[in-house]
Amino acid sequence: MSKNIEQQAGRSAHVCLTPALIPLYKVEEYIVVIIDIFRATSSICYGIENGAEAIIPVSQVEECSAYREKGLDYLLAAERDGKVVDGFDFGNSPFSYTAEKVAGKTVVLTTTNGTHALHLSRSAKKIVIGSFLNLTALSAWLKTQHENILLVCAGWKNNFNLEDTLFAGAVIEQLKAEGFELDDAAIAANDLFQLGKGDIDEYLKKTSHGERMKKLGIEKDITFCLQVDITTAIPVLQGERLVKLV
Amino acid sequence: MSKNIEQQAGRSAHVCLTPALIPLYKVEEYIVVIIDIFRATSSICYGIENGAEAIIPVSQVEECSAYREKGLDYLLAAERDGKVVDGFDFGNSPFSYTAEKVAGKTVVLTTTNGTHALHLSRSAKKIVIGSFLNLTALSAWLKTQHENILLVCAGWKNNFNLEDTLFAGAVIEQLKAEGFELDDAAIAANDLFQLGKGDIDEYLKKTSHGERMKKLGIEKDITFCLQVDITTAIPVLQGERLVKLV
Repeated sequence: MSKNIEQQAGRSAHVCLTPALIPLYKVEEYIVVIIDIFRATSSICYGIENGAEAIIPVSQVEECSAYREKGLDYLLAAERDGKVVDGFDFGNSPFSYTAEKVAGKTVVLTTTNGTHALHLSRSAKKIVIGSFLNLTALSAWLKTQHENILLVCAGWKNNFNLEDTLFAGAVIEQLKAEGFELDDAAIAANDLFQLGKGDIDEYLKKTSHGERMKKLGIEKDITFCLQVDITTAIPVLQGERLVKLV
Repeated sequence: MSKNIEQQAGRSAHVCLTPALIPLYKVEEYIVVIIDIFRATSSICYGIENGAEAIIPVSQVEECSAYREKGLDYLLAAERDGKVVDGFDFGNSPFSYTAEKVAGKTVVLTTTNGTHALHLSRSAKKIVIGSFLNLTALSAWLKTQHENILLVCAGWKNNFNLEDTLFAGAVIEQLKAEGFELDDAAIAANDLFQLGKGDIDEYLKKTSHGERMKKLGIEKDITFCLQVDITTAIPVLQGERLVKLV
């Protein structure tokens, strides 16, 4: 009997390995963490830390341009093939999200994988943003929430990628002592994190995405995105805007 | 120039972590290996090794019963909650697939996850069946095929599971020296296999499925399904029937 009560009281920490698997979860029963390490959620964490009033993720460059009409205070971030699209303020590099550039501003950020994951998670109890940059602050907050947690990897074109999974495993690492019930994906992600944590940059070099990033000439961005705990702000979704959780 | 030619000549070995991700692949460009370790593809490998003329996988108990009408030579295998359904010859335990029981017979096997994965892979160049039982025979054959390979994990209710992924990683282990191009899922599966290979049974004890299996009282089946290289037959799909590849 007491075992049953314990089980009922137990929280789950599950990992959704790609947005294509989100429909398998009752999203409304979870706090969802969106993860898109290279580079959307890293840039979002850095931008919110640096005083951006809000960041609005959109999936298409055209949607982003539409914000141009709405007012001059928006900064527009859009990239194709690693280059800033003509007429936009900057791209997706975290180096564009410094206090000088974004403090007090609202940024409209074009990110296909990240926006897709966000939209499919709309019915969640709450949606927050994670990256290695805010790993411990995020994990500490999650521990206090008394809710089930779903770590959603934005992946690459709806499929699995290693960097988002590794980060999910890093969060599980911080949660697992709290007695969360873990699913197989959470166990796998955590095991992969154990393998990679000694040198995450090196570990990810063998992946497809690492190759792709190298071709785009954004290795510096990668190194930046793999820094652990350089920020403490937790971006949270309010309506269509990501703002600092207070 | 010579590098380009090499790349063109290169084959891919990709891992599809759940049937929900099959639509992301151009299945017609691959030989597909279906993996459902607990217990469908293990039982199929064992049955074909033991002389079953054919095994027909179906997803519903009702479909299975329909074969009763077609002739007395069919053996019907159907299980619910770990028990043989009334009126059926046996369930999904590999111990039912001995030579005494299945030699020369056609078995109709009810398997939800496995059948689902098979149906979604219909357009593949060829569909074969893998399990730890035929690991090395299967891998050796795959090496000779000069085709791209997609290892499809049947998973659990369309989601990720660790045992199917671990087996995919075991196949990658045997293929990787051949210069196959690997995707992130193949790299992850292989890394998980490295962690688990010392004692796969022990490694899988922490998973959700291990728990489920224990509740069903089929730990003996699990131990059986984790035996490596006790068979050499490779089941291949011909029409709706799985037969021995010759």
